[in-house]
Amino acid sequence: MPLSAAILQTLQSIVGDKGFITNQAEIAPYLVESRNKFKGQCDVLIKPASAQEVAEVLAICNDHDVAVVPQGGNTGHCGGAVPNGGILLNLSRLNKIRQIDPLNATITVDAGCILQTIQEAAEKAGLFFPLSLAAQGSCQIGGNLATNAGGVHVLRYGNMRDLTLGLEVALPDGRLWDGLRALRKDNTGYDLKHLFIGSEGTLGVITGAVLKLSAKPKDTAVAFLGAETPHDLMEVFAILRDQFGEELSAFEIMPRFGLEMVTKHMKAARDPFHAPYHWYGVVEVASSRPDSQLTTALEEALHPLFDKGFLHNASVAKDLSQASQFWALRENMSEAQKCEGGSIKHDVSVPLSHIAEFLEETSHMIGNIVPNSRICAFGHVGDGNIHFNISQPIDMEKDAFLAHWSDFNEIVHEMAEKYGGSFSAEHGIGLLKTNEMELFREGPELDMMHSIKNSLDPNNIMNPGKILKKRP
Amino acid sequence: MPLSAAILQTLQSIVGDKGFITNQAEIAPYLVESRNKFKGQCDVLIKPASAQEVAEVLAICNDHDVAVVPQGGNTGHCGGAVPNGGILLNLSRLNKIRQIDPLNATITVDAGCILQTIQEAAEKAGLFFPLSLAAQGSCQIGGNLATNAGGVHVLRYGNMRDLTLGLEVALPDGRLWDGLRALRKDNTGYDLKHLFIGSEGTLGVITGAVLKLSAKPKDTAVAFLGAETPHDLMEVFAILRDQFGEELSAFEIMPRFGLEMVTKHMKAARDPFHAPYHWYGVVEVASSRPDSQLTTALEEALHPLFDKGFLHNASVAKDLSQASQFWALRENMSEAQKCEGGSIKHDVSVPLSHIAEFLEETSHMIGNIVPNSRICAFGHVGDGNIHFNISQPIDMEKDAFLAHWSDFNEIVHEMAEKYGGSFSAEHGIGLLKTNEMELFREGPELDMMHSIKNSLDPNNIMNPGKILKKRP
Repeated sequence: MPLSAAILQTLQSIVGDKGFITNQAEIAPYLVESRNKFKGQCDVLIKPASAQEVAEVLAICNDHDVAVVPQGGNTGHCGGAVPNGGILLNLSRLNKIRQIDPLNATITVDAGCILQTIQEAAEKAGLFFPLSLAAQGSCQIGGNLATNAGGVHVLRYGNMRDLTLGLEVALPDGRLWDGLRALRKDNTGYDLKHLFIGSEGTLGVITGAVLKLSAKPKDTAVAFLGAETPHDLMEVFAILRDQFGEELSAFEIMPRFGLEMVTKHMKAARDPFHAPYHWYGVVEVASSRPDSQLTTALEEALHPLFDKGFLHNASVAKDLSQASQFWALRENMSEAQKCEGGSIKHDVSVPLSHIAEFLEETSHMIGNIVPNSRICAFGHVGDGNIHFNISQPIDMEKDAFLAHWSDFNEIVHEMAEKYGGSFSAEHGIGLLKTNEMELFREGPELDMMHSIKNSLDPNNIMNPGKILKKRP
Repeated sequence: MPLSAAILQTLQSIVGDKGFITNQAEIAPYLVESRNKFKGQCDVLIKPASAQEVAEVLAICNDHDVAVVPQGGNTGHCGGAVPNGGILLNLSRLNKIRQIDPLNATITVDAGCILQTIQEAAEKAGLFFPLSLAAQGSCQIGGNLATNAGGVHVLRYGNMRDLTLGLEVALPDGRLWDGLRALRKDNTGYDLKHLFIGSEGTLGVITGAVLKLSAKPKDTAVAFLGAETPHDLMEVFAILRDQFGEELSAFEIMPRFGLEMVTKHMKAARDPFHAPYHWYGVVEVASSRPDSQLTTALEEALHPLFDKGFLHNASVAKDLSQASQFWALRENMSEAQKCEGGSIKHDVSVPLSHIAEFLEETSHMIGNIVPNSRICAFGHVGDGNIHFNISQPIDMEKDAFLAHWSDFNEIVHEMAEKYGGSFSAEHGIGLLKTNEMELFREGPELDMMHSIKNSLDPNNIMNPGKILKKRP
């Protein structure tokens, strides 16, 4: 339904002039994502200043069947915060840290808080907020919650949902649900918090949260590994997990092609080894005990893995600066890949026991369709999460390569499914993967999601068309 | 609706004679809980032998509006598995461990598996399943899932929901949902798994699960602490959490009265200290690193806490046998309390920062109503979880004391609410706390639960009357 002048006026009266933007030039940056795959449109951008204002806006929209697209830092990749009409509801003005409780090790925040702000506030209180991902300087915690963000520390601390104790949510009917309980145990009926986390704004608008904080790591060791195959690196992973348990805080792999891109395109990046290897690993162990001697322990743990043939080379960082250099090789890969022409990207997961064969088989199939495709399958393999990204062959036309987008998607997602995996590990569904939802989640699972959506948002005003396609 | 002969015959044809019990003498033990607070009744006990049979039973019951009460090991305390007509569906024949995947560190199990069987299977595979609670020799994992069980290791490993990756659920409409994904990252729509976990059989019947396993702890240290106040013990907790981080795997407190009961009534139990203290603590640290020197580290960490006045005494266990003795003092408390006459029990949680004042204020109020009430408030304070149990005064009539049941409930639950806590930390709602649900969760939260219940179980066949009271 188009927005009538009367509705617009009511919305403006709720959020005031500062929160009511109709100038298309001002709205434009909010309508595209960084990967530029979706182009949204809408007549009005609403920026409420409080949870109460969010709830009031929803009440009006619900009464008049106006679609509401909630948006945080707009750092997603799946179109989840891209509007198609209705109103775009940006949470950036809800940016207060409401409370820190050091003994309870919790922080209560507005949904629009920048992730890094929360990390810094925790640090100041002598604690640690472990969610860490590339966009942390601009992504908002509300978006992290709506998409159940992952990142590099999932192995040790879990996904966003594992870091959350309570939520405040503005509901489609205009009521504000105060579920901001700061409790580690609370068995009182259905866990609604987990329903909203990961629901990408399709059930309501998260306006606040209570997050769990952890003890600060006081000793860390990072190693860069050179190996022959993903299979070997998974053996290394299993042995380190057994020896370090929860102290193993990250385990990432990347292929030679990934390292080559980074050392070629990123200033200051250099190969830690003199000889090349087919596969590389980055491992991080961390402990709250300052006396944990992790550097020595990691060196000793890696040593026997050479004899077993799982490792060909390894360098344990001498200091924090070298540790950052190792991490940068892994973290700058996406940036570097932009310099290598067209790329087709995926975010999948498989059980750890199938990673090696998944990589081998899928790479083979991609090579059969476009020979000399340059595959950069990397990621958080400690969690089974692979970013299966494919760069075009050097001598191919970009558009000709990108024409294979859906073929490649189909192969990678079908292979993930074959191995009991997921077609979306950490990025979510948005608009990008609604076809895959229909394909891989059909049956009771999709039916239940539709039932829940209908029961909590009967007028389908909340981010319509995201995650779930409209059913006739 | 009464069960017609035709319905009974159909049910019998699904589960066979072995799974179809109508002899009331055989049914009787399944109709009461160990605390004997509820007495159920039903005409037929059904014991299906497979998930498929469970689904077929539900289809029939749904078609004929027959109530279904799922039951595991029947070790709950809240009446959640006590039937009132309809059929009692006991899962004990679904008792297979379906698969262990050591590299993925997961185990796939039938819902009727005994918790201890799962712990042992994990151990055999060189891994560790951390859920640990008093009933582990007889409780079933399906019940642990349905009630989101807690126990003594929540501090380090989380509740049951944190240990679960995937579920298989027989739905009220007779379909079997295969959500047995063994993935640590899977952001594909609403997290239905978390909706079923803790829903106490009111949305469907959990028939199988994929559980997360952890690295085996290889070094453990346990200390018994003597202190003046809960406040002092919470200071100790905060300092140990900062120093040990995730290695801190349990932190429990108990009052002098608790220790006295155990040493009086339990054979072989003795006070570790020569002098009495008002409050005691049990702390456990554990690490996957065999070289972690935890005993020394714990001793060194406790030492400065004497100077600060937080501790009056401490004994770090010399060996595993002494560690077990320390743990037994805490674990046998409920058993010992049975010898002290009538008791009124609670299972609440509050933020850690309010535990001390919650205990003080609530104890004071209880004493005002029944002077000389003997309060044994103990529990998993590292998670904010207090079992606020009250034994009758020595010279009071048991019945006169027990007549204060609802007054005491009201006080304890209102005080938990006052401090932002929960009236049910780990035991759930069942029949016992449906009044409290109406009182403390009224408004959007309860409305959403009813909406979800109606949308997934429109005929209200699944464990009716548990968690949620029927609305007119």
